[in-house]
Amino acid sequence: MVYLTRKAEFSASHYYHNPEFTPEENQRIFGKCNNPHGHGHNYTLEVTVKGKVDQRSGFVVDLKELKEIMNREVIDAMDHRFLNKEVADFKDRIPTTENLAISIWLRLKSKLNLAELHRVRVYETPDLFVDYYGEA
Amino acid sequence: MVYLTRKAEFSASHYYHNPEFTPEENQRIFGKCNNPHGHGHNYTLEVTVKGKVDQRSGFVVDLKELKEIMNREVIDAMDHRFLNKEVADFKDRIPTTENLAISIWLRLKSKLNLAELHRVRVYETPDLFVDYYGEA
Amino acid sequence: MVYLTRKAEFSASHYYHNPEFTPEENQRIFGKCNNPHGHGHNYTLEVTVKGKVDQRSGFVVDLKELKEIMNREVIDAMDHRFLNKEVADFKDRIPTTENLAISIWLRLKSKLNLAELHRVRVYETPDLFVDYYGEA
Amino acid sequence: MVYLTRKAEFSASHYYHNPEFTPEENQRIFGKCNNPHGHGHNYTLEVTVKGKVDQRSGFVVDLKELKEIMNREVIDAMDHRFLNKEVADFKDRIPTTENLAISIWLRLKSKLNLAELHRVRVYETPDLFVDYYGEA
Amino acid sequence: MVYLTRKAEFSASHYYHNPEFTPEENQRIFGKCNNPHGHGHNYTLEVTVKGKVDQRSGFVVDLKELKEIMNREVIDAMDHRFLNKEVADFKDRIPTTENLAISIWLRLKSKLNLAELHRVRVYETPDLFVDYYGEA
Amino acid sequence: MVYLTRKAEFSASHYYHNPEFTPEENQRIFGKCNNPHGHGHNYTLEVTVKGKVDQRSGFVVDLKELKEIMNREVIDAMDHRFLNKEVADFKDRIPTTENLAISIWLRLKSKLNLAELHRVRVYETPDLFVDYYGEA
Repeated sequence: MVYLTRKAEFSASHYYHNPEFTPEENQRIFGKCNNPHGHGHNYTLEVTVKGKVDQRSGFVVDLKELKEIMNREVIDAMDHRFLNKEVADFKDRIPTTENLAISIWLRLKSKLNLAELHRVRVYETPDLFVDYYGEA
Repeated sequence: MVYLTRKAEFSASHYYHNPEFTPEENQRIFGKCNNPHGHGHNYTLEVTVKGKVDQRSGFVVDLKELKEIMNREVIDAMDHRFLNKEVADFKDRIPTTENLAISIWLRLKSKLNLAELHRVRVYETPDLFVDYYGEA
Repeated sequence: MVYLTRKAEFSASHYYHNPEFTPEENQRIFGKCNNPHGHGHNYTLEVTVKGKVDQRSGFVVDLKELKEIMNREVIDAMDHRFLNKEVADFKDRIPTTENLAISIWLRLKSKLNLAELHRVRVYETPDLFVDYYGEA
Repeated sequence: MVYLTRKAEFSASHYYHNPEFTPEENQRIFGKCNNPHGHGHNYTLEVTVKGKVDQRSGFVVDLKELKEIMNREVIDAMDHRFLNKEVADFKDRIPTTENLAISIWLRLKSKLNLAELHRVRVYETPDLFVDYYGEA
Repeated sequence: MVYLTRKAEFSASHYYHNPEFTPEENQRIFGKCNNPHGHGHNYTLEVTVKGKVDQRSGFVVDLKELKEIMNREVIDAMDHRFLNKEVADFKDRIPTTENLAISIWLRLKSKLNLAELHRVRVYETPDLFVDYYGEA
Repeated sequence: MVYLTRKAEFSASHYYHNPEFTPEENQRIFGKCNNPHGHGHNYTLEVTVKGKVDQRSGFVVDLKELKEIMNREVIDAMDHRFLNKEVADFKDRIPTTENLAISIWLRLKSKLNLAELHRVRVYETPDLFVDYYGEA
């Protein structure tokens, strides 16, 4: 049983705002992330799958397929996008790093038949990242 | 004569669009960067000053003052901003990495009395950066 | 249930010495780390908290509060300090990376009401780090 | 109970080929990694051990001994080698990152009496790594 | 006048051997790099061009074209290759990092009409790199 | 003519103090770096040499000799040392990053017969570095 992790990057913008909060609450809780024009990040995504090593190929997963799924389900949908306005996942959810990790997990979970999805890690900056393992 | 470089980071969003271009030209030249909703980056800024070492302090420049100038002139103005809409430098100039480096040079040049400004480097991503030395 | 990690850096010096060891033992076990003048590192600290995502804010933890606690309990106490001489935790314990991770865990554990402390990671250099999960 | 991780690097070459596959299968499954001349990587190895902290030394493991074991069992055997041709582990197993992590685990497991081996991580590139915990 | 740098990676293998040297000289001068099976690296390439910023696009160079030229002239030719055996540049020249930087400069120089080639930097490992500016 | 750069690391401690300053001046100018117990850093050193490529070896400089000189003249003298107290260069000069770069240049200049010393770069932290080219 091994765990294989592949990284990818995408650039997107977002802002934090809850319409149920007062303007003061939005400002206090979200600070400069509340700016409605948005701001952006170079996100780094790490996708970890686990499984047994196929003795014939030496692979736990076909890397080309894994890359295609990551590109199709995540990168193509989010790269160079304003997450709040252009990605349906964030129509009613704030695109924090926490929610982004959960959203990417859900996007990948059903498509990855090759191996078991183990972890999604999202770096918003080099100094801040979130891990999600599908735990309730 | 030594050269001292200090790094800082800021997160901003931008998009590329020239109103004098046709929509087709904008799309061909700028590709997915032409998306008007914008997308973003974690920019890394490197500011290099040159000068003689003060024999009494061992410093070429007071690091606290350098940091304050970088914060006041660049970070406070650009961090968590949509460059096209919120930073006056880009009212009529496209906020490419090239123009961003020139803009930051101009912002710092007049304020840095402590030492001579030598170079401004701006990373848009870890794989793409621009250097400007004030050369015409 | 998500895991959020925030990094911070601090610079400190230390040396390794056990007064119950003979000089030869101290030299053999600690090598050049036994130099009483001390030497130093740029330590990198990663603090991981776990918890449920607040549906209203999208946060597992208020990042400003987390940063304040990390600054107050760890960075302010240890940055630009000689750990053996100036940080009480190391009055009778050798400030190895192992003991530093445990010490930082204890400092944060009681203060973090916002979310559950999951892991403290301390890098002494980019090539050496220790993880502590509060396990006995 | 703490977990200590030490990194090391080595440079090696390899190629992927299964003599039981047809040439078409080898090409389809392994792509340009099937080139028999081989290609290479700067591998990064992370070895994690777990154990209790020795109260007298503050160490979970003697770092010099750990380094010697890593050098003797892994680096000396694999650095500047063509893995398929010069390392016996890969006589009949394809030197994928998965198999490399398992091989390194087996090489270290029996030699590490100092502390319990917890994890072997191998980076083939900065964007691809495998973890092995000795799980069947 | 700005300087724009773009990075790319490729993985290759090589060995160092001069047929005019005796075996002893080859061993003494090249050490473990003399192993004829070869060993490999993840090379990082930085290509720097200089030029004036086009006022209409904000670009010094079309990034897509630059990437295509780098891919066609360098990456496609060298990635996943044994440099001594499969890249004609090294038929009679030893593929040291020095010669690799010169070779990449020559490959790019004639193709880059978009802007002036300023520098080629090649990292063999994170701790060793060579710069070439086309100077005789 | 190529430029080759080799990196090395060392860990040291230092503090900033000028006995000709009043205590208030020392505190105002040097801040928390004035703490006489010292604090420390993982310094990264980059040494760049320039020269013609030897056609027979493909080298601009013998890397083993370069490494030996860097180890003997710099690393052995400064690693795990308190710079103010244990390195004679800083008996009467404050060990700022500026003075450290100049000191390392002087140590290497006379010993490097192999190739011309071009630049010494010293990183005190990943966010602060100094370059010295031997310019008066």
